Amino acid sequence: MMRPALLLMLVATAAGAAPPESGQQIARAGSQSPAAGPAAWFTGVVKVEPLWRADASINTSGAYVTFEPGARSAWHVHPSGQRLVVVAGTGLTQEWGRPVREIRNGDVVTCPPGVKHWHGAAPGTRMTHLAVTGMADGKGVEWMEKVSDEQYDARRD
Amino acid sequence: MMRPALLLMLVATAAGAAPPESGQQIARAGSQSPAAGPAAWFTGVVKVEPLWRADASINTSGAYVTFEPGARSAWHVHPSGQRLVVVAGTGLTQEWGRPVREIRNGDVVTCPPGVKHWHGAAPGTRMTHLAVTGMADGKGVEWMEKVSDEQYDARRD
Repeated sequence: MMRPALLLMLVATAAGAAPPESGQQIARAGSQSPAAGPAAWFTGVVKVEPLWRADASINTSGAYVTFEPGARSAWHVHPSGQRLVVVAGTGLTQEWGRPVREIRNGDVVTCPPGVKHWHGAAPGTRMTHLAVTGMADGKGVEWMEKVSDEQYDARRD
Repeated sequence: MMRPALLLMLVATAAGAAPPESGQQIARAGSQSPAAGPAAWFTGVVKVEPLWRADASINTSGAYVTFEPGARSAWHVHPSGQRLVVVAGTGLTQEWGRPVREIRNGDVVTCPPGVKHWHGAAPGTRMTHLAVTGMADGKGVEWMEKVSDEQYDARRD
């Protein structure tokens, strides 16, 4: 004889009902595979470690991004903005038309929607930031041209 | 004679126009004042270090929360969910009706909306997590009763 719980599940599935909301979930350290930052969007060696995905209630995705010395993103904009929390090392960031600025462990960068910018490691140190990226229609970034060596080496503020 | 830029600003203000969107902002490490976790909502010594606020495009606030050994939140739910990234030490968390679970550096906890739970440090170690809290109508948490010593000391899974 079928157990009532199993029967209920089959009935719910047959009726097209959504499964019951799952409870608290723990993704263990190291259980989410990192990816290399694609060469089309990054200069140098960049590692992206996913932390969480956007869902119906939280409209950001989260990831640790580690840039080896000299590595940086291409120029880009975030349609829904981004927050960066530097967690290791020293990095650089620049908004289009403004000076390159240094960012250090503990700094929090707010990138409003639509602001063209780049970020990466300083020449001499690896830099890791936690990136919290606003997602709209599954998209968090619009990529543009690479950051040239001249732009990267420009005088810092 | 009034400079054109100033004149334009005054005209825009007089017309009630929003100021131009500000660009990339950097909040330097240590520039945002920490707060103690209020005794009504926490047991033991807890420090909350704000990182970013929710805005029109990103519906989460971010903070580092550090629990001294044995310290923990009260039971609570998040109306719009929460993500926790453990960044130091070993902690504990429990969903109502389920066993206490240990969380360690690098673990990511997903708390869906409406799930009653608590989190804090393990008995012997300080624990820090980055908390990314879904905000709806300016509210991110509904507080409930304290976690008793019996609940805190219950057998771990």
